[in-house]
Amino acid sequence: MIKVGIVGGTGYTGVELLRILAIHPGVEVICITSRSEAGLAVADLYPNLRGYYELVFSDPDPATLAQCDLVFFATPHGVAMRLVPDLLDRGVRVVDLSADFRLKDLQVWASWYGMPHESPAWAERAVYGLPEMARNAIRDAQLVANPGCYPTAVQLGFLPLLESGLVDGRRLIADAKSGASGAGRQASVGTLHGEIGESFKAYGASGHRHLPEIRERLVAASGDPELGITFVPHLVPMIRGIEATLYAELKNPDDFQRLQAVFESRYAQEPFVDVMPFGSHPETRSVRGENSCRMALHRQPDSSVVIVSSVIDNLVKGAAGQAVQNMNIMFGLDETSGLKIPALLP
Amino acid sequence: MIKVGIVGGTGYTGVELLRILAIHPGVEVICITSRSEAGLAVADLYPNLRGYYELVFSDPDPATLAQCDLVFFATPHGVAMRLVPDLLDRGVRVVDLSADFRLKDLQVWASWYGMPHESPAWAERAVYGLPEMARNAIRDAQLVANPGCYPTAVQLGFLPLLESGLVDGRRLIADAKSGASGAGRQASVGTLHGEIGESFKAYGASGHRHLPEIRERLVAASGDPELGITFVPHLVPMIRGIEATLYAELKNPDDFQRLQAVFESRYAQEPFVDVMPFGSHPETRSVRGENSCRMALHRQPDSSVVIVSSVIDNLVKGAAGQAVQNMNIMFGLDETSGLKIPALLP
Amino acid sequence: MIKVGIVGGTGYTGVELLRILAIHPGVEVICITSRSEAGLAVADLYPNLRGYYELVFSDPDPATLAQCDLVFFATPHGVAMRLVPDLLDRGVRVVDLSADFRLKDLQVWASWYGMPHESPAWAERAVYGLPEMARNAIRDAQLVANPGCYPTAVQLGFLPLLESGLVDGRRLIADAKSGASGAGRQASVGTLHGEIGESFKAYGASGHRHLPEIRERLVAASGDPELGITFVPHLVPMIRGIEATLYAELKNPDDFQRLQAVFESRYAQEPFVDVMPFGSHPETRSVRGENSCRMALHRQPDSSVVIVSSVIDNLVKGAAGQAVQNMNIMFGLDETSGLKIPALLP
Amino acid sequence: MIKVGIVGGTGYTGVELLRILAIHPGVEVICITSRSEAGLAVADLYPNLRGYYELVFSDPDPATLAQCDLVFFATPHGVAMRLVPDLLDRGVRVVDLSADFRLKDLQVWASWYGMPHESPAWAERAVYGLPEMARNAIRDAQLVANPGCYPTAVQLGFLPLLESGLVDGRRLIADAKSGASGAGRQASVGTLHGEIGESFKAYGASGHRHLPEIRERLVAASGDPELGITFVPHLVPMIRGIEATLYAELKNPDDFQRLQAVFESRYAQEPFVDVMPFGSHPETRSVRGENSCRMALHRQPDSSVVIVSSVIDNLVKGAAGQAVQNMNIMFGLDETSGLKIPALLP
Repeated sequence: MIKVGIVGGTGYTGVELLRILAIHPGVEVICITSRSEAGLAVADLYPNLRGYYELVFSDPDPATLAQCDLVFFATPHGVAMRLVPDLLDRGVRVVDLSADFRLKDLQVWASWYGMPHESPAWAERAVYGLPEMARNAIRDAQLVANPGCYPTAVQLGFLPLLESGLVDGRRLIADAKSGASGAGRQASVGTLHGEIGESFKAYGASGHRHLPEIRERLVAASGDPELGITFVPHLVPMIRGIEATLYAELKNPDDFQRLQAVFESRYAQEPFVDVMPFGSHPETRSVRGENSCRMALHRQPDSSVVIVSSVIDNLVKGAAGQAVQNMNIMFGLDETSGLKIPALLP
Repeated sequence: MIKVGIVGGTGYTGVELLRILAIHPGVEVICITSRSEAGLAVADLYPNLRGYYELVFSDPDPATLAQCDLVFFATPHGVAMRLVPDLLDRGVRVVDLSADFRLKDLQVWASWYGMPHESPAWAERAVYGLPEMARNAIRDAQLVANPGCYPTAVQLGFLPLLESGLVDGRRLIADAKSGASGAGRQASVGTLHGEIGESFKAYGASGHRHLPEIRERLVAASGDPELGITFVPHLVPMIRGIEATLYAELKNPDDFQRLQAVFESRYAQEPFVDVMPFGSHPETRSVRGENSCRMALHRQPDSSVVIVSSVIDNLVKGAAGQAVQNMNIMFGLDETSGLKIPALLP
Repeated sequence: MIKVGIVGGTGYTGVELLRILAIHPGVEVICITSRSEAGLAVADLYPNLRGYYELVFSDPDPATLAQCDLVFFATPHGVAMRLVPDLLDRGVRVVDLSADFRLKDLQVWASWYGMPHESPAWAERAVYGLPEMARNAIRDAQLVANPGCYPTAVQLGFLPLLESGLVDGRRLIADAKSGASGAGRQASVGTLHGEIGESFKAYGASGHRHLPEIRERLVAASGDPELGITFVPHLVPMIRGIEATLYAELKNPDDFQRLQAVFESRYAQEPFVDVMPFGSHPETRSVRGENSCRMALHRQPDSSVVIVSSVIDNLVKGAAGQAVQNMNIMFGLDETSGLKIPALLP
Repeated sequence: MIKVGIVGGTGYTGVELLRILAIHPGVEVICITSRSEAGLAVADLYPNLRGYYELVFSDPDPATLAQCDLVFFATPHGVAMRLVPDLLDRGVRVVDLSADFRLKDLQVWASWYGMPHESPAWAERAVYGLPEMARNAIRDAQLVANPGCYPTAVQLGFLPLLESGLVDGRRLIADAKSGASGAGRQASVGTLHGEIGESFKAYGASGHRHLPEIRERLVAASGDPELGITFVPHLVPMIRGIEATLYAELKNPDDFQRLQAVFESRYAQEPFVDVMPFGSHPETRSVRGENSCRMALHRQPDSSVVIVSSVIDNLVKGAAGQAVQNMNIMFGLDETSGLKIPALLP
């Protein structure tokens, strides 16, 4: 059994990790930390876990964490980069679900996150944990930077287009929509039900922190430093789910004929990417609670614009599920272990 | 492997059976019928099942169904009572999720369902499948009548009170609330999102079909033919979940002190009933997608009224999950097989 | 034009007052106070008011408020009882939307609100502002205590039953459900969309602050000090609306025949109470944004229990709308002025 | 008083017309037709109208309709083009809320709506009723084609960009999202609450009927026959509201500095278009129930892409409200008559 710890377990990502790990056959969660809730049973905070865990939130303790084979960090940005190096030095492996190790360009990181990066050495060594891009590197990584939710949905949709070189990379558009759980479980007026329910809006339209992450990874995937992408997130009055509608221009419209095959072939071996038939409309509910990304292609009459609609559950393939997938890869387990359960529909 | 068939699989109960059985280690679904969708792959109707089933909806065929060890009926009322006897005669066991075999008093049945009962012999032999009441009888049953969703939440909350004789059984009140999936997946104006969203109402307040079912079972449980219950269902703008707030008057208010112990002891051995601490407020989301019933007790100042709040997922413990629980019991499997997965929260 | 001030205008009750008063022909809002948002334009906080108000939130200033003919208090409990006496002494009339002046029994008040009452003299003089009960007293009142949202829905449903003496007043049950806006606009984890959406629960089941308010008023209406009521509120995943399902036992079941007439006659002259045909199911959306209370009666087979379903918009007839109705009465305006606009459906 | 008739009044557009006209000071609704509901009181179908209308649905009768000064058609496509010519010949003026008269190119119309157009002469004479584009023509029109909901939100956002010639018109993208009321009130599985709630998806991504309408109007507005636009609609789990996020490329990025002024100046005199400060995020709830379009501009770092976020209530500025605005213009009334009521927020 792999001994697992979770740092910062009171948020939605934390409870989702616990939900998934509760049925994982190869894992034992031996500690979960929270300064604010230390002493509280996790099942008292999250009644869906009654009967599954005896665990109690504890103050973060390096000695205890050091006994883990793997520690998940589900903390706000700025925390992992301070705590992780010590653990890594002790030989513990880490999957960081925060943004601390996602960017290689630390000046960009500093400008978007409003603080200098405190662990540049580990930032360089961290592996960006998108298995569909970096499975081999993840296998050997000591520190995996778990991708952001939007970046996961956007990258998976764009990758076949960029890798194949079929589209103009300078004019990409990603119009993305997320349920409210993406904003976390902190008390705030802006995410009250009374503010979010029965309404829809764009936010971060002048620049969202996932923009540099998406850009850096797509540049890497395409090899094109001129790559240009516009990314606008929106808030949907629902709890879970991200849909990203992606727009790119085919260099040669004749390539529309082979596009579906390009996508199907790119993801043929991927257990968690499902390319639906051309012209399908993936629904976020089709992946609710599941670790999959579903996508489909569209073309409008007389148009050279490729449209990709890509959906994930932001808490699963966009966070905790992908983290467990990374763990499975890192420890040589079946990659789907604990993750093959159909989405909750309706 | 138990060979399972599903008759009438296109509704929400059908897809929920498929979702649960997809991860059940001891079951193989060999056929699923639907006259209207014959020829369609189930994964084309329900994209959450892509990758889990190759199965195609087929016309109901007695010979194929007869090869099953167990057939679930997820049909509108009036169907199972016509088709089930032939299958039972061939030795197939049946769990009927419809209302056809839930009542013993067939005159009452006929008056609420607007047609004469066509299989009185099997109605008499059918076992009402509430495991917490009738586990032994279910084990040997050939035909199990799976309880209604409201009746499950209401009975489980009232049982300890009635069995212990602590309350006045002539003045019970059950104020119940359900998500919209309880109304099924038929096209109808009344269950459009535009009609149901952002609104709340009572319905069936002058008499709902679950009223006679609840009454017959509570009379049986209490042994009191004078038992009187008022039951009002309400429609909540959400998809899954039932909450029932139950009111009963203690014969002796001093008994409040031992009430919690009565409940905990009644359900101590039940894998799917969770009695929370006195004064808790169970949320429907704490059982979303899970087969549990959670409940808690309350008392208001200077009052002799016991308040029980009881929650289930109407599609799981209120339908498909309980049906699988019954199947597990009937075939001597671990009763929790395929059913121990934490609820999806948030 | 009546000069109006609003104290504590940043919450949902405040914006609702502004929305209603924006189209009131006889009113000018001359000041709105908020310590936290002083200097901010109301239209910047509430974009639906862009184009309707130039008003800016200001620090509360007694001299400015004293220039008003009427001041609405939309503050948390404990504020109005300290600030109101001074204004009243200067001749300003006040409608207090908080709980400070709703109870006559100040010991009960102190025990539920956790502080001693600081203005017992005005508490005695305050008129409880339910127009359907106290129109004449409201007309002459200097201080009106605007009723709570639940108490409005519950009282209006019970009044005809209690006034007519047809029911047993010792065993009343009020099972009430509210949208999330009733919890206000304060940052809190419990009212996040991620916590409330797609879930339903009871809360305050062991005792909610509206219980003593309901009880005191129903005792007054019935003249029966033995009156006993159980009140359980629930949280609905929607923004606006309260539905209360009320249960009472007829002393003589034959009275069912004249019950509808009793209700219709009781409210025949009321502009804001709508008694629907016997057996109807009022929807909260039928009063969304409107100042009405709609209700209907039900009886189940062989039962002596009267069921009343009563709906209001908690922010309108349950708060700001009723406050404006009270203002209209106090100043001799048409009682429906500014309030006759159909509900927003769908 | 203008005598008004409504043909096809049982849908959401019909009830919304009634809601708005109930408080319009210059209008009397003298008939409302529905074949399916003839004989039913409108207040029995729509309880929010109880107390506002005595009107009963009637079979469509040409003689009665001919007594109207204006008839609104709120019918499915294909109906108005058959019934309207006779009424127009009798001198009645018509606002058609369906798609029948929105396109000038009737071959395009026929190919998207699957039937030949039956009234080409009136299609030519019909005025496309977007007041911000065609106020003068509307004033004198006998037949006004009320714009589609998506086309209203999309056009208003693009107009200042295209009229000013600042952007490349060949690569426009409109990513639009709508609440479910846009799909109407017909019984259908696809718009059940159980199908739509808690989920998000694109639909019509390979081509939606509003695409040719948008394209034809933008070509007209820009004078550029080469104009190219990609339009993808999405379904939001809410009832009312459309948000359109629009993307266009500035020919000269320096023009960003004057863009806000271009928008403000374009709409300075418009009573129902509100240009918010640069960088704002309009919410659909800020126009819920109101006839406004709110919009704001955004730019991302180092980008030449203009982002416009534009919101309307699909049933108001996207349908019934705009129809009443058109009526006000046609009859020389104050253009805002009956339409100046703040949106319902929260």
